[in-house]
Amino acid sequence: MAVGEDKLPELLPVPGVRLATVSAGVKTAGRRDLVLMELAPGSHCAGVFTGNAFCAAPVTVAREHLSRSAGQPAYLLTNTGNANAGTGERGIADARACCEAVAAATGVAASAVLPFSTGVIGELLPVDRISAAVPGAVDNLAEDGWAAAAEGILTTDTRPKGASVQFSCEGRDYVVTGIAKGAGMIRPNMATMLGYLATNAAVDAALLQGILREAVDISFNRISIDGDTSTNDACVLVATGAAGNSELASADEPLYRALADAVEEVCVALAQGLVRDGEGASKFVTVEVKGGVSEDECLDVAFTIAHSPLVKTALFASDPNWGRLLAAIGRAGVPDLDVNRIGVYLNEVLIAENGCRAASYTEEQGVAAMAPEDIVIRVELNRGDVSASVWTSDFSYDYVRINAEYRT
Amino acid sequence: MAVGEDKLPELLPVPGVRLATVSAGVKTAGRRDLVLMELAPGSHCAGVFTGNAFCAAPVTVAREHLSRSAGQPAYLLTNTGNANAGTGERGIADARACCEAVAAATGVAASAVLPFSTGVIGELLPVDRISAAVPGAVDNLAEDGWAAAAEGILTTDTRPKGASVQFSCEGRDYVVTGIAKGAGMIRPNMATMLGYLATNAAVDAALLQGILREAVDISFNRISIDGDTSTNDACVLVATGAAGNSELASADEPLYRALADAVEEVCVALAQGLVRDGEGASKFVTVEVKGGVSEDECLDVAFTIAHSPLVKTALFASDPNWGRLLAAIGRAGVPDLDVNRIGVYLNEVLIAENGCRAASYTEEQGVAAMAPEDIVIRVELNRGDVSASVWTSDFSYDYVRINAEYRT
Repeated sequence: MAVGEDKLPELLPVPGVRLATVSAGVKTAGRRDLVLMELAPGSHCAGVFTGNAFCAAPVTVAREHLSRSAGQPAYLLTNTGNANAGTGERGIADARACCEAVAAATGVAASAVLPFSTGVIGELLPVDRISAAVPGAVDNLAEDGWAAAAEGILTTDTRPKGASVQFSCEGRDYVVTGIAKGAGMIRPNMATMLGYLATNAAVDAALLQGILREAVDISFNRISIDGDTSTNDACVLVATGAAGNSELASADEPLYRALADAVEEVCVALAQGLVRDGEGASKFVTVEVKGGVSEDECLDVAFTIAHSPLVKTALFASDPNWGRLLAAIGRAGVPDLDVNRIGVYLNEVLIAENGCRAASYTEEQGVAAMAPEDIVIRVELNRGDVSASVWTSDFSYDYVRINAEYRT
Repeated sequence: MAVGEDKLPELLPVPGVRLATVSAGVKTAGRRDLVLMELAPGSHCAGVFTGNAFCAAPVTVAREHLSRSAGQPAYLLTNTGNANAGTGERGIADARACCEAVAAATGVAASAVLPFSTGVIGELLPVDRISAAVPGAVDNLAEDGWAAAAEGILTTDTRPKGASVQFSCEGRDYVVTGIAKGAGMIRPNMATMLGYLATNAAVDAALLQGILREAVDISFNRISIDGDTSTNDACVLVATGAAGNSELASADEPLYRALADAVEEVCVALAQGLVRDGEGASKFVTVEVKGGVSEDECLDVAFTIAHSPLVKTALFASDPNWGRLLAAIGRAGVPDLDVNRIGVYLNEVLIAENGCRAASYTEEQGVAAMAPEDIVIRVELNRGDVSASVWTSDFSYDYVRINAEYRT
């Protein structure tokens, strides 16, 4: 199951980035499960990684290599089918060995390669099969490889996610293209997801990191499928400089806002794509909380709703169960919450106010509001002027089936 | 589905308490859905209530009446089928009207009656039907009514929960009997549960409140079924004084520890009974965290495991998925957690150490450890000497079915 349109949009090449997707047989013979991305010399790469204390071996090595290459890696290598997580010292050595295979095939230093893995936790990585597939990947690098790469990084996802945005600034044309994967174990602070974005702009390394962090905070960190967070998450943003602009070095330049907006647009599209393809998802739900005193309290309310299994099973049933919504709002921990000032809307139908069902509300209105695949739950706290939104999916039989059967 | 033995133990009468369970037709005609408890004059009653900001009308009224009766109410009235929550001012009036019906039938003040409701949120209480059933309840009050009351308070529960403990102290015989309901929306800080305990001891009101609070903290506040908390939770402890002891007035008296232990034993039995009957439960899971620096960090780790949908679906599948356990431990937010010092056991089988699968571990051992209905997950943090345990259940198709269909 997945919600909404299935079609991958056209993914525009980013001059300076070439990609190849080949089969290494990591978990399933014949599956195209290995993606190599080549970054033109001089490209800057920013990255954000999982906050899980049990971070996977490739995350440790990718962080280290990003630092050792001074933010200018030459290759990104991603395998699916195996997360190389919970694999201890051996896992670290295996991640390094994969980087060495790329180094041997291309002549760069192993520290110029960032490794990424996703899939089953706790199995040893089949390094030999991955290494054997690397030379074939190097031979097949191409600028138009984004769509195949979007397929190659998937695990339990049912469809690829990608987005491109073009814009012009001061007479130059720019592009931002991104792909992402992740369908479960998704919640704030970088859940099981991998995201790769690139632009042809030339951008100072520190500024690039700031643009990525800001965009991730309001996109990937605003989604929740099941409240779990993963050991392997990573999102990178590459700036190749192939556009030929003088390096963006200040947030005051016109290019800064234009680029940051484009990166944000791509990140939001990818994040919403992850939720629409959430494990077992049959609804795409936007939870908007308005009228809060602070962004934190708006997010507390929004995520409490988004994480509630009772709300999520009601969404699966298309049941306008406003009682479960009120119960979730009430336990979100907002200090001095006056429940009598709160309004709750389902797709613009006022369902609850003054601490109870709205006088104007009818069950028919609620049923009609819950019928579409896309649902907006809006909570008006009426105590301030801050707002925040998160996106989530419902909780279905299929969610249980997928996660009960995943390893078997 | 439910886990373990189905038989309600013998529930011993508590001199000074009489109970009646009758049918008011709140939601289903003929269902015995109304429970009246009468407390002998002079009884003290302690209570703890939900922390949800959207607390239900009966909770508001029960708190107020407990205070107005100086902790000495004469009657407790409980209906199932309707939670009288999210019903605003009308709900408050309805809860008061139910108290007045008891007052009219018995001659006590309405403020000497505590109302309790459980069931669907957001529907108006059928006060007329409840009021009409009260006189019949008054006529049927009896000391041996505990087992019928344990049935009468249920909602989605599949079986009644009750426990009795007897003990002697300084030549007198004492009894503590309790019943509880609740099968979903259960997590720390008083989830959807109602609990009623009584003892024949005479106990000072403040001391009684302390005994109840302590017992609730390590029983009902240590269980989680789905991470949701309710608007209606309440647990009361009545001390009738029928044993004839001089009123217990100090924690230094021998009776204090004996009584507190008995209350704790009953609360733990009831709390575990709630988990065993958790919505869709097929496993009863104890999560023990040892070797922590503080109780808080042990509980953070234990509840992160207990709330994880990925761990819970793996438990449903009897899948020894230690990778998901490590991922949950890693995101529990424990500061400076050294993952290489952690050991994880499934029913005494060491499955993970040094941040990865234990060298001694075999998949066969894991499968064997996961086969029983009762599972102990033990996490050894090896950084201090504090421990804490919580109890939870798994996440099954039936959980989704029950909660997707509940209102229809």
